[in-house]
Amino acid sequence: MPPRRSEGSHCDRRQFLAGTAAAAALTVLQGLQPARAQGTVGSAGVPDSRLLEDLVAANRILAKHGIVDAYGHVSARHDKAADRFLLSRSLAPELVTADDLVEYDLDANPINLAGRSQYSERYIHAEIYRARPDVQAVVHDHSPSVIPFGVSSVPMRPVYHMAGFIGAGLPVFEIRDVAGMTDMLVSDAMRGRGLARALGQSTAVLMRGHGVAVVGATIPFAVARSIYLEVNARIQLEAIGLGGEVRYLDPEEAKKVLESGENRGYERPWELWKRDALKDM
Amino acid sequence: MPPRRSEGSHCDRRQFLAGTAAAAALTVLQGLQPARAQGTVGSAGVPDSRLLEDLVAANRILAKHGIVDAYGHVSARHDKAADRFLLSRSLAPELVTADDLVEYDLDANPINLAGRSQYSERYIHAEIYRARPDVQAVVHDHSPSVIPFGVSSVPMRPVYHMAGFIGAGLPVFEIRDVAGMTDMLVSDAMRGRGLARALGQSTAVLMRGHGVAVVGATIPFAVARSIYLEVNARIQLEAIGLGGEVRYLDPEEAKKVLESGENRGYERPWELWKRDALKDM
Amino acid sequence: MPPRRSEGSHCDRRQFLAGTAAAAALTVLQGLQPARAQGTVGSAGVPDSRLLEDLVAANRILAKHGIVDAYGHVSARHDKAADRFLLSRSLAPELVTADDLVEYDLDANPINLAGRSQYSERYIHAEIYRARPDVQAVVHDHSPSVIPFGVSSVPMRPVYHMAGFIGAGLPVFEIRDVAGMTDMLVSDAMRGRGLARALGQSTAVLMRGHGVAVVGATIPFAVARSIYLEVNARIQLEAIGLGGEVRYLDPEEAKKVLESGENRGYERPWELWKRDALKDM
Amino acid sequence: MPPRRSEGSHCDRRQFLAGTAAAAALTVLQGLQPARAQGTVGSAGVPDSRLLEDLVAANRILAKHGIVDAYGHVSARHDKAADRFLLSRSLAPELVTADDLVEYDLDANPINLAGRSQYSERYIHAEIYRARPDVQAVVHDHSPSVIPFGVSSVPMRPVYHMAGFIGAGLPVFEIRDVAGMTDMLVSDAMRGRGLARALGQSTAVLMRGHGVAVVGATIPFAVARSIYLEVNARIQLEAIGLGGEVRYLDPEEAKKVLESGENRGYERPWELWKRDALKDM
Repeated sequence: MPPRRSEGSHCDRRQFLAGTAAAAALTVLQGLQPARAQGTVGSAGVPDSRLLEDLVAANRILAKHGIVDAYGHVSARHDKAADRFLLSRSLAPELVTADDLVEYDLDANPINLAGRSQYSERYIHAEIYRARPDVQAVVHDHSPSVIPFGVSSVPMRPVYHMAGFIGAGLPVFEIRDVAGMTDMLVSDAMRGRGLARALGQSTAVLMRGHGVAVVGATIPFAVARSIYLEVNARIQLEAIGLGGEVRYLDPEEAKKVLESGENRGYERPWELWKRDALKDM
Repeated sequence: MPPRRSEGSHCDRRQFLAGTAAAAALTVLQGLQPARAQGTVGSAGVPDSRLLEDLVAANRILAKHGIVDAYGHVSARHDKAADRFLLSRSLAPELVTADDLVEYDLDANPINLAGRSQYSERYIHAEIYRARPDVQAVVHDHSPSVIPFGVSSVPMRPVYHMAGFIGAGLPVFEIRDVAGMTDMLVSDAMRGRGLARALGQSTAVLMRGHGVAVVGATIPFAVARSIYLEVNARIQLEAIGLGGEVRYLDPEEAKKVLESGENRGYERPWELWKRDALKDM
Repeated sequence: MPPRRSEGSHCDRRQFLAGTAAAAALTVLQGLQPARAQGTVGSAGVPDSRLLEDLVAANRILAKHGIVDAYGHVSARHDKAADRFLLSRSLAPELVTADDLVEYDLDANPINLAGRSQYSERYIHAEIYRARPDVQAVVHDHSPSVIPFGVSSVPMRPVYHMAGFIGAGLPVFEIRDVAGMTDMLVSDAMRGRGLARALGQSTAVLMRGHGVAVVGATIPFAVARSIYLEVNARIQLEAIGLGGEVRYLDPEEAKKVLESGENRGYERPWELWKRDALKDM
Repeated sequence: MPPRRSEGSHCDRRQFLAGTAAAAALTVLQGLQPARAQGTVGSAGVPDSRLLEDLVAANRILAKHGIVDAYGHVSARHDKAADRFLLSRSLAPELVTADDLVEYDLDANPINLAGRSQYSERYIHAEIYRARPDVQAVVHDHSPSVIPFGVSSVPMRPVYHMAGFIGAGLPVFEIRDVAGMTDMLVSDAMRGRGLARALGQSTAVLMRGHGVAVVGATIPFAVARSIYLEVNARIQLEAIGLGGEVRYLDPEEAKKVLESGENRGYERPWELWKRDALKDM
């Protein structure tokens, strides 16, 4: 059962901040002993409370938008250590609180697990953080309208400026190339490295027969790109369904969208989404 | 009118457990006399309270996901007797409480009906339980995006790992083969046997011009497969709509998904869905 | 502004019944004078309270299912006089209460309008009641997935048993045939008669570039058919979108669906929908 | 953070009117100093309280219908000065209150900004008001099913009478024609003038790879047309998806829809939508 504090009642923002910071500190402290016992190094310290708040909000925002259901996850690089990241224990994203966040190193070893179960695909996050120092947040999901583009010979392209981050297209990760016939899960370091390699310098990588991994320089960027990737997919599906010729954003236009601030840094939706997500806690 | 207890108020989980176990015991006891009068044998006893809770939750979860509306039903094999199963009286699934569950034998005879009306298609459940000792739960529904695959020459295939249980494809039950021109309902034993035969060893069988029957080794498996079958259908429809070539899961990949635990036994969504379903009671 | 009584508060079913019967009686009494002044005959009397309750529920159910938005309407033949019917004043269906129902004769003249504004397309209802003595309820709506079948050369066909009432297909009313170039509205008796003629003995008639009119022997039949017509349309669209061959219900199968009670008279959904609709009043 | 007054509590309509009129007056007064300091002329005065109420409602209605998300905006011409218009500060539409409305001149200069951030695409509104004296309200959005028609060679056409305002079709604004390779935003006067030129005398102009701008003689007209444009787009997509021949409204029929009052001036939906939007404030 998820923690009692997120049931029913409604806490205001200051309480939340105070609560999560304290709770996280406690979790980290409590977690140090078992972590050492497992042979991992110590915690990088208590993360910034704003980072924790944003990561909790990110989990709930993605669930509210149907980008994740009980599966899928979102992580953030630790603000005190570039070789650490924060990711929930194995739990449906819409139930995640700051208490559920686990600190990981870049080999996907947990620092403060304290006996809780883990996402088997944490290697997606670890290997992307290792390969891409510019990335501060990673989303993995089974975004329903994005999946068709990972299994079809028809490539995803940006149909409107909100999806300028697609640029000239997105790479597709074929897990068979690195691991042959599998259960499709990126559940070890080798598969994670293959995925990170396929991602390259892109903003997202489609995963054939599975879903997508999306990255960003902040949590809002990774979350907003995940949401608008789904919207763009639906619009592109409809545009193709009309049967005529489709004019996509020119790669030059897509580049200018990014250069001019990429939708003003998604500040406006982030304010709206976060407000809405925290309201339910 | 549905029972007053499910209106408005909000009961916590312990109350629910206590309430349903007691209520079910009462129902069973009350039901024994009329059942005997109808010439059926006595009850196999009070089912496990967790099973009852899961079956009530299953009814509500399927309704919340749009897999059933007022039609469709879900059953579970009795935990005390392999030749008995539990299925609601004729009622819209989202209104079902433990009090509404009726015990049936494998000829679809009710043990404790007490004058209540029945689902006319209870034979779907009875004949599948008879033919498939491994099955502990059965869902029948009119899942909207699944129906096209039951009437089209284009077969359903797994587009992503969440639907690995589709394997190399699903059988389609053509009711004309066993009963000629009908009202399409599996409302007698002969039709039920035809459906069970078409199902064979699969996880689900599409019913032409009607819907689908989905099975599982537990209630969560049958429910989760019903939900992800609908999701897979929507994604496959979109993938085909793109007009290119589609790469489905290889049967070997699908097999490995099942062998590796089939989405971790759907534990994560079940926790989320059940919590959400019981909240409304 | 809609009447204050439907705002915020929550009334139980007995109150509702008492309230609507009283209110309707009052409305009818108050309405007699202006009606006579307009040269129409007197009221046929206070309708059965159950009929009023069902008609109010029907308005709200259709809105909740997205079958009507602010446009569209539903009527019922008066239980005390076959040449009268009840239809709301001009108002969005989800706001309709028993106080808003107006009594009409079969020329679409209001009996108790009392200065309120009317639906300009009340002729749809009047002319269908005149032409079809078996019809007790009529729905007119702009059901979004049904409209394509009224403008396309591809005919609507039943893809599953819930839409058996479609039979071998539905007629399409081309308003140009009776009135040339128009504003598309069935806003006079001539257009209404043309529509009723096109309907013939069918359960529904598609209106090219406009919507649909659906009939039933009771309010639940007309409402449920309207809802399942939309569902069937979506499923047929998807089945066609797969690109293969589609096997529709055989007309003989559709006939047997009707003969065997047409989805058990829609009793199960009606109980669910009505309960849900009245909860919000 | 959005202002506290819109959180949680529920204010009745009179309070809202009083509150917004007072607040707006205050905002205007407070804003005069900074406005002058920026070299703009003084305010045209306090707008009519009904206009403010409708504009706030319009923001929320468009959000509730999914026509805008955090992006997109709606404005109204000032009732006291034809060369002024009212538009929210940079804020997600569903959060907009009367306090957030800024007065602009037709060069898109703010009169009472008071340091708040602005929508970068306010030039869409300014240049349309300049070019079209008949227009009193403008909506700009990324309506998801409308976007395909802005990028496809297949033109949008009215499939039903609710979209008669589409007439014989809608113009498409290609930003490359006026500004070459850009970030796609109409963020200066030149681009705004190009858009207004493309709009011509139409009711809306599609923006390639971006969205749409819709106009009206009142706020309800602009809002309702925005909503029914999306509905028409979805219906047309489905009608085309059926693969047969599609019969659209004849331009003469579309013209008659407008001449006969264009869906009765959208009075019925406006009453419903506004009531619903203000309920949440």
